[in-house]
Amino acid sequence: MRIVLIGAGNLATQLGLALATAGHDIVQVFSRTMASAMELSSLVRASPIIDIHHIVADADLYIVAIKDSILTEMIPCLCQDREEGVFVHTAGSIPIDVFQGAARHYGVLYPMQTFSKYKRVNFREIPCFVEGNDEFAVNRLNAVCASISDRVTYLVSADRRYLHLSAVFACNFVNHCYDIASEILLKHNLPFDTLLPLIDETACKVHMLAPREAQTGPAVRYDTNVIQAQAMLLKDNPQVKDLYERLSRNIHRNAINK
Amino acid sequence: MRIVLIGAGNLATQLGLALATAGHDIVQVFSRTMASAMELSSLVRASPIIDIHHIVADADLYIVAIKDSILTEMIPCLCQDREEGVFVHTAGSIPIDVFQGAARHYGVLYPMQTFSKYKRVNFREIPCFVEGNDEFAVNRLNAVCASISDRVTYLVSADRRYLHLSAVFACNFVNHCYDIASEILLKHNLPFDTLLPLIDETACKVHMLAPREAQTGPAVRYDTNVIQAQAMLLKDNPQVKDLYERLSRNIHRNAINK
Repeated sequence: MRIVLIGAGNLATQLGLALATAGHDIVQVFSRTMASAMELSSLVRASPIIDIHHIVADADLYIVAIKDSILTEMIPCLCQDREEGVFVHTAGSIPIDVFQGAARHYGVLYPMQTFSKYKRVNFREIPCFVEGNDEFAVNRLNAVCASISDRVTYLVSADRRYLHLSAVFACNFVNHCYDIASEILLKHNLPFDTLLPLIDETACKVHMLAPREAQTGPAVRYDTNVIQAQAMLLKDNPQVKDLYERLSRNIHRNAINK
Repeated sequence: MRIVLIGAGNLATQLGLALATAGHDIVQVFSRTMASAMELSSLVRASPIIDIHHIVADADLYIVAIKDSILTEMIPCLCQDREEGVFVHTAGSIPIDVFQGAARHYGVLYPMQTFSKYKRVNFREIPCFVEGNDEFAVNRLNAVCASISDRVTYLVSADRRYLHLSAVFACNFVNHCYDIASEILLKHNLPFDTLLPLIDETACKVHMLAPREAQTGPAVRYDTNVIQAQAMLLKDNPQVKDLYERLSRNIHRNAINK
């Protein structure tokens, strides 16, 4: 399939690499700066472009992987006079109908993973959620997704927002907890990698146990001596202390309602 | 070495199994109920006991792995007339001097991991932090720990509390985020295991990148449209909504101070 990538960030990079590896023809990579367009286009053997009017009209699929905040404003210009292509965005929280009126065939391709430019991921294991406005779009999207992932599911926008919300907790907020832990350790000259076996085991456990069952620590026991002493260790960092106390209370509340 | 385990919970179970596998002689397992004393003692070929006065006086090491809240009150009775043994507790947040005046040789053995009774762990990879009040205690503890773990470090109580605090963030609070994600999904009939590749990759990333560098998601971009829309999805759950907003603000603050 002939594919145009609009965007050259973390997601566009990993998706582009997976698509190119699967044998698709990445025709162009559009980005706001030539440097980033060139960086990705060289990896996937595409042409780098920075002028939206230079995007070809005869691609099969246009994948828009750009910041949510600029997606809406780009769509009219992007879809104009490219009626035969299927336009998809990759945003968890943006509904499919953002394309309504602008494109004829459109949809969503949401790969639920955290992407970095320089860390290659195994796309085959990534759950991909697709949605399309018509059979034409759905069929084309399914075909592309099946070529890169073994876990393709159809999901409507109304449900996808909850999926995205859960991903924010399971990934972004989890990583922030790692970050706070890292700060505490570094402040006391303890190496962050000491935590890696614990981090790995915590992730590993929820493959076998529901998170509620896997919960351990002072909060679930509601060991008030430890909780108060630990909160005091954070007294110079009121936002983190506040988080500590709220998270502890929530864990305890869930434990007694179990 | 002849070892007595005081406690038969998650940590005592995994530690007992590791010690027995390493060839130590687990003489007794003390617990408050005969059922739990028997459950662990049968795994490590020890005698189950529920009367503290029945604990032998000639063990080399007494490992106290019980709830922090009952540790202090048990110590005087436990250490009495057992002067030759080394007494250690396993609690991250309790200082070594909880034994002062009660025991002659004492210390701490803190294995930094999350333990479940029924999920076997590879102890060799678990960072173990030891502390002792004298050379005799330190040498004996080091010898025991080296027999079960490849990552033994000496750490004083004042620093261990920060280690424990960081573990609460990196494990207990992380697991609570998984739990919230799970609740959101189940409420919308989406399976929790959809999140596992994301959970694994999030943990995997901080092996290579500092957590601050690995941060992704709407909060780090401060995508206020997404943040506001996601907060609204949580309006029926004020505590979780509040957490969502605080975590998002903290992530953003860290991103701009990076």
